Amino acid sequence: MVFSSSLLENAVNEFAKLPGIGKKTALRLVLHLIKQDVKDVTAFSAAIATLRQEIKFCSRCHNIADSQLCNICNNTMRKPEILCVVESIRDVIAIESTQQFNGLYHVLGGTISPLDGVGPDQLQIDSLINRVSTENISEIIFALNPNIQGDTTIYYIGKKLQSFPVKITTIARGIAFGGELEYADEMTLARSISNRIPVENYITAGN
Amino acid sequence: MVFSSSLLENAVNEFAKLPGIGKKTALRLVLHLIKQDVKDVTAFSAAIATLRQEIKFCSRCHNIADSQLCNICNNTMRKPEILCVVESIRDVIAIESTQQFNGLYHVLGGTISPLDGVGPDQLQIDSLINRVSTENISEIIFALNPNIQGDTTIYYIGKKLQSFPVKITTIARGIAFGGELEYADEMTLARSISNRIPVENYITAGN
Repeated sequence: MVFSSSLLENAVNEFAKLPGIGKKTALRLVLHLIKQDVKDVTAFSAAIATLRQEIKFCSRCHNIADSQLCNICNNTMRKPEILCVVESIRDVIAIESTQQFNGLYHVLGGTISPLDGVGPDQLQIDSLINRVSTENISEIIFALNPNIQGDTTIYYIGKKLQSFPVKITTIARGIAFGGELEYADEMTLARSISNRIPVENYITAGN
Repeated sequence: MVFSSSLLENAVNEFAKLPGIGKKTALRLVLHLIKQDVKDVTAFSAAIATLRQEIKFCSRCHNIADSQLCNICNNTMRKPEILCVVESIRDVIAIESTQQFNGLYHVLGGTISPLDGVGPDQLQIDSLINRVSTENISEIIFALNPNIQGDTTIYYIGKKLQSFPVKITTIARGIAFGGELEYADEMTLARSISNRIPVENYITAGN
């Protein structure tokens, strides 16, 4: 791509560094910004710079935070005795959007994956054990992605938590709502049969 | 989407204002930025702000420019007597990328489209007529998109230029390279037959 302006070229190259954004899309975004008010574009630019410079990670659950503790940990209306263990901040947002969980979180920052060079030490596992031993936690819900790395991580942490009087659960696996049985993979379908639930539980769960 | 940080929420909302970017993509981009170096993100933010605040439009051809005249108009190696009339800056970039055109440009800023409320007065048509009457221009090549608005614009400008001793051409319409005849629309195929070219011209065009 040949540009007649170095300002334009610079902005396009910066946008094209973002994941999933190629040069053509970057150009489309930049030409859109050029047409906007200076005020709006300055606000956009400032939001990005401020975010990166001021963002913090919650010292308790490692979620994204504006101050030392995140809004969820700071919320006294939530139940501190139930902990939902997730892989990433994105999963916190997904679960919060359901408005069905009222406990606190613990963000691991990934899952144990030897092939990718990620061992337990790179994850927030020690701080999780520490929370279980110092905070008054009664249940830990694992909400990890259903793959081999997720299962390995559950198994590893489960072993470490054996000596604590804490209930350990994992979110249900099964056929998604709106999904069709015939298109489900065999493993999901097999597990959804072996882990079948009584109809009365299914109904009381609000579905 | 529920956010535990207002910095995060603000950045996601700003990204989601861009065309073709929804909340989920915006979140993905923002979480990517959080993982980058502060230096890199500051450079990204600055590139956007600087672009919008300092970008200019070339006073001669209305292309994007860093100073009063764009790099193309400033380039003395190019032929100022051939003018390529295009709809937008994006078309200038597309034609420049072919490295086949060595004249100057004139960016109209759109095409005549009464249904969208765009008349000749909203476009850079008067300044084009002005260039033809003051600069020593021998040929005008219309490189507009092949649709009814493009054709209307060519017809309108062509009428206005009747009294000037200038050759008026338009880029060739026809079957694209790599395209297949059987999938071409009827109008393109019909025009490509009626505007057929002698094989010797086709070969000397460097194909």
